Amino acid sequence: MIIYADNAATTKLSEKAFNAMLPYFRECYANPSSAHFLGQKARSALRESRSVIANCLNAGPNDKLIFTSGGSEADNLAINSIASYGIRHNRRHIISSKFEHHAVLHSLSELEKNGFEIELLDIPEDGIIEPSAVAEAIREDTAGVSIMFANNEIGTIQRIEEIGRICRSHGILFHSDAVQAVGHIRVDVDLTNVDYLSFSSHKFHGPKGIGGLYVREKSPVSPLIYGGSQEYGLRAGTENLPGIVGTAVALEESLAHLDYKISQTTAIRTYIQNEIASIPSVRLNGHPLERLPGNLNFAFDGVDGDSLRYLLEEKGICASAGSACNSSSSEPSHVLKALGLSDSLCKSALRLSIDESLSIQDAAYIVSSIKLILSELWD
Amino acid sequence: MIIYADNAATTKLSEKAFNAMLPYFRECYANPSSAHFLGQKARSALRESRSVIANCLNAGPNDKLIFTSGGSEADNLAINSIASYGIRHNRRHIISSKFEHHAVLHSLSELEKNGFEIELLDIPEDGIIEPSAVAEAIREDTAGVSIMFANNEIGTIQRIEEIGRICRSHGILFHSDAVQAVGHIRVDVDLTNVDYLSFSSHKFHGPKGIGGLYVREKSPVSPLIYGGSQEYGLRAGTENLPGIVGTAVALEESLAHLDYKISQTTAIRTYIQNEIASIPSVRLNGHPLERLPGNLNFAFDGVDGDSLRYLLEEKGICASAGSACNSSSSEPSHVLKALGLSDSLCKSALRLSIDESLSIQDAAYIVSSIKLILSELWD
Repeated sequence: MIIYADNAATTKLSEKAFNAMLPYFRECYANPSSAHFLGQKARSALRESRSVIANCLNAGPNDKLIFTSGGSEADNLAINSIASYGIRHNRRHIISSKFEHHAVLHSLSELEKNGFEIELLDIPEDGIIEPSAVAEAIREDTAGVSIMFANNEIGTIQRIEEIGRICRSHGILFHSDAVQAVGHIRVDVDLTNVDYLSFSSHKFHGPKGIGGLYVREKSPVSPLIYGGSQEYGLRAGTENLPGIVGTAVALEESLAHLDYKISQTTAIRTYIQNEIASIPSVRLNGHPLERLPGNLNFAFDGVDGDSLRYLLEEKGICASAGSACNSSSSEPSHVLKALGLSDSLCKSALRLSIDESLSIQDAAYIVSSIKLILSELWD
Repeated sequence: MIIYADNAATTKLSEKAFNAMLPYFRECYANPSSAHFLGQKARSALRESRSVIANCLNAGPNDKLIFTSGGSEADNLAINSIASYGIRHNRRHIISSKFEHHAVLHSLSELEKNGFEIELLDIPEDGIIEPSAVAEAIREDTAGVSIMFANNEIGTIQRIEEIGRICRSHGILFHSDAVQAVGHIRVDVDLTNVDYLSFSSHKFHGPKGIGGLYVREKSPVSPLIYGGSQEYGLRAGTENLPGIVGTAVALEESLAHLDYKISQTTAIRTYIQNEIASIPSVRLNGHPLERLPGNLNFAFDGVDGDSLRYLLEEKGICASAGSACNSSSSEPSHVLKALGLSDSLCKSALRLSIDESLSIQDAAYIVSSIKLILSELWD
């Protein structure tokens, strides 16, 4: 038996999305830029998928949806666009936070080398940024703000609507990395006033290698990849049509009965959360309620998170040590450090990311397995 | 009946590659960066595919193969790397040619806005750049050279080996966009002395949305996409594993019996070439022999290429008007202009890009259809 509890890393491709992709691998394989009727068929599937995704996000008719190779490229494209705007308007101050994804943080570090001032907001202990902290950080030379919708390690959901309102009222650009949020909770680009919003298909049961950046109607875009005139002339390269079609189908499917799925996943998560967080020396990282339905992140004082993860794997449970999403890194998680955890507590962390398919029996097995392992490790 | 003669735009996905991808969509879907055994399985498939492709290109054991979203991103990554090297070493002169792909030309235009001097070599009438022209253009402040392996519109194959030797002897970086060449003719990164070489899977019956940049052992790389530590820390983003596996299988398959395929395709092409080029007022664009096996590009004096393309489509033949690979553009082809064709001759062009699956009967049908349409148009 294998229990996959690593959905924040990636999700299983939906069968419906998979089946929808098949004709675009095999029959309708033409280049959407080709003038002939095979190209036209591809072009019309591209148009249709773009419109489905735009509707899912509640995008306006003149807003753009730029397909990218995934969330990291989308984040880089947004940061690049804010930076270019900043250079043109002599605004070289950008606000972000200490627990953003590396696709944002490392893009910002590059800008810092080139004369930008990057202000990374501190993270309160509950993992939720106060919108007032964003407001206080805004200066005359602020070009933009980048705050993630929901954190990838601890799942806390940010007050994007309020932050969006603040950015809008100050006339500065606002990007939100919504890679963990889209398909899992309601994401409405209109309501949240974002200028840019990143998403990644494989995080919501879509295919890998595809994602996109939502861009509000008049918000500026500075390309990362130059070449052909695909994607409004803003992102060159032959479109990954099977991936785009799969994205549209997976997103629509994720959002169908979303409220039910959220309740269901939250119920299962709450059960695990209550069982584990009540163990002495265990700490739940991030706000207990304002988090993604399927995310749990615990610190187990005195335990090595990697060992715990490995022992769970021996029991057929695939989770992630909170310390790093990348197995080759042994650095303590920058997210947990931002919450104020000591290095040793950071390294004791375990992330479980579940979805609504997890049964209560499997959840009980996860709980009993963790308790058993802890009793042995703490013995 | 449909005859697809637009393989330079994109190719049909190989059934073998498609089948190889399936398990990575459905069972082995974990993130290759995950520590658990599902992640390890994904990681080992990634490693295996990378090694297959490296072998196909004759890459050395310490050379890198950076997977990208396709050829355009790979070209941009190479140009960005040459430019960053140029900035570090105060060499702001880059040599390229007038008929490169837009992914190279538009990247270079951006550099021009930022203080680089871009020297685009003229193209001789036969579409083959003299290596001596490259040698003559090299200056003390030249950072690098970017010359494509084979042109995407007229198919002419450049003297990459000689150009590589010249660049190497001058100690400057050399990139070749081999998007049209890899999988179609022998491409050996060792023999050609390239520092960087771009390829795109969907041009050799692999999937869309995936490609890569070969990088020689010690050649510098400056990332375009920052974030996670994937791809030697040089290209962030969860790997598109199904795409990567499909690329390896498609490339291996393309190169199996390559000599036979080249002879077969060349035989069919030569038949069409001789039949069409001998019509009065028809001109073959590019060298008659030193071109990709499956590429034909004709100018039909006094004919509108778009109309010709459309009339062929009515007969079931999908080709491309030479004037643009993108149907939304009405600009005359920069490639044909570089060859010295007048605007009206540029707009009379038709590209046929075939592969070894085209039968002699289909080839004869293409020939008779073109002759019939011309007789009506010229009537």
